[in-house]
Amino acid sequence: MAKPPHLDEFARIARFFAPLAGSGALGLTDDVALIDGPSGTQYVLKTDVVVAGIHFFPSDPPGTVAQKLLRMNLSDLAGKGAEPVGYLLTTALTTANDETWLKQFSAGLAADQREFGISLLGGDSVRTRGATTLSVAAVGRVRKGTALLRSGARVGDALYVSGTLGDAALGLALQKRRRLGLSGRHRRYLIDRYRLPQPRLALGRKLVGLASAAMDISDGLVADLGHLCDASRVAAIIETARLPLSAAARAALQRDPALIRTILTGGDDYEILFTASPSAKQKLARLPVTEIGRIEPGRGVKVLNSLGKPMALGRAGYSHF
Amino acid sequence: MAKPPHLDEFARIARFFAPLAGSGALGLTDDVALIDGPSGTQYVLKTDVVVAGIHFFPSDPPGTVAQKLLRMNLSDLAGKGAEPVGYLLTTALTTANDETWLKQFSAGLAADQREFGISLLGGDSVRTRGATTLSVAAVGRVRKGTALLRSGARVGDALYVSGTLGDAALGLALQKRRRLGLSGRHRRYLIDRYRLPQPRLALGRKLVGLASAAMDISDGLVADLGHLCDASRVAAIIETARLPLSAAARAALQRDPALIRTILTGGDDYEILFTASPSAKQKLARLPVTEIGRIEPGRGVKVLNSLGKPMALGRAGYSHF
Repeated sequence: MAKPPHLDEFARIARFFAPLAGSGALGLTDDVALIDGPSGTQYVLKTDVVVAGIHFFPSDPPGTVAQKLLRMNLSDLAGKGAEPVGYLLTTALTTANDETWLKQFSAGLAADQREFGISLLGGDSVRTRGATTLSVAAVGRVRKGTALLRSGARVGDALYVSGTLGDAALGLALQKRRRLGLSGRHRRYLIDRYRLPQPRLALGRKLVGLASAAMDISDGLVADLGHLCDASRVAAIIETARLPLSAAARAALQRDPALIRTILTGGDDYEILFTASPSAKQKLARLPVTEIGRIEPGRGVKVLNSLGKPMALGRAGYSHF
Repeated sequence: MAKPPHLDEFARIARFFAPLAGSGALGLTDDVALIDGPSGTQYVLKTDVVVAGIHFFPSDPPGTVAQKLLRMNLSDLAGKGAEPVGYLLTTALTTANDETWLKQFSAGLAADQREFGISLLGGDSVRTRGATTLSVAAVGRVRKGTALLRSGARVGDALYVSGTLGDAALGLALQKRRRLGLSGRHRRYLIDRYRLPQPRLALGRKLVGLASAAMDISDGLVADLGHLCDASRVAAIIETARLPLSAAARAALQRDPALIRTILTGGDDYEILFTASPSAKQKLARLPVTEIGRIEPGRGVKVLNSLGKPMALGRAGYSHF
């Protein structure tokens, strides 16, 4: 599932698409666009596209493929503090996507529509002779001016994440037939975290007014923190000793300490990464979040190992699924 | 470029996706979704996906591929009487979509952004090992409650279209190396009409308050009129003698009268099809539209040939690119 060697996504967007961005697009430096809604609200728009064989396994259960695609987008809305409204869906389908596949795919969407209180707004469905390609454009809603952006981090802010990190990247490694020396229960937990992200929508809404900058983590902690720092024109320090880890991730790390790199740089966490001024600390203590570092002057991301020494991650931190 | 045999788009949408549709989605029976905007407006949302080798030729100029994708969506907005605001873009690219391709593709978008006064709101760009797959989700705007829908046609209304019909379908036949006995000038005109639709945005806005039902023609006159009739629960009669034809289409038809079927059922017209009460006739006379038939009680579409006799089109009228 390695990407063909080529101009990477970020270079492609910066060179060819960012010059096309207009009002509301935030220069394509944030994950979303904002357009005015009714009665002092704004809509938050986000789109993602996934391809069979690149972003999911053609053999993955169609219901979880649907749910993951939807949740990837809902996670972006969560990272902006938005409430989800609905989504547009496009599907380019192969002959392998037969009626059984479609039935399971749409059942996955129906289940998540109930879970997240959203509905399908429209879409387009075509046939392809290439790989199954699916896209969602999600619509969320915030009070005008309250969307959490990447660009608000300030020197002196503390750095937080929700949930636990690295589970999905370890789950992907397990799907590629690495066993990591784990019990069946731990393996199932990590694979489930890879297949079915939990968008932190309720938490995201609670962070409005508390977080100075926020985004969801989809490309890995270090890479996404790099984007947040770039947009805010600051630097950040991560203390690996403070990273919140699941019991399964801890078990994997105990057998192979080098997996800390997978946890720091692997994709698909779909947790919220945010910064907040020290004055918000008491209120944040009541939320399921963990302080993992701080914002400093400068640019870039520095990672301290468990002994407090800088770790070299090379380009790994910026590679992209 | 024939479609793989399979459950067709409409059956797929009706069975698997329509049950997921919520408020604003118009039951997926219209081309667009509507959500409230600021100050008494509504946003009109529309998405389309195209695949290389199915909807465009991999060798087509990348700039016109970009423009056609954008204009397909703008044409839907035109058919609803909406003003375009912006768009989201997703691209799943192969190694053939190199920097030269991307440069031309984004230049096509830039040219159309200037022409139509819109900008890119956001997007996602990934690599694929399959076929290049591109989607646009377009955002338009109307005064609340004024969007032209498919469902408003009434018995006694007259039936109109903008521009000329069949040019793009004949242009596609020419691209498939049929010459149709035409001059080079006529061939170039028709191929250009296939490659680069002209969304009738100014006309669409003028139809607000005049048309009782409207939509753009993308799947062919007869098929799309069938959708409009279904949504309005009426029947329609087309008089082929009244169809507006370009000089090039007329020349092709003179050599091969059977091409009338291509004109009636071929896709990619991107003109506006609409109905209006007889009381609107005088105002409509000032617009670039042609009356081609009428709405009657019942269901379905009847086509009268140049002698006024019913023509049998079979399933051709409902086949889909």
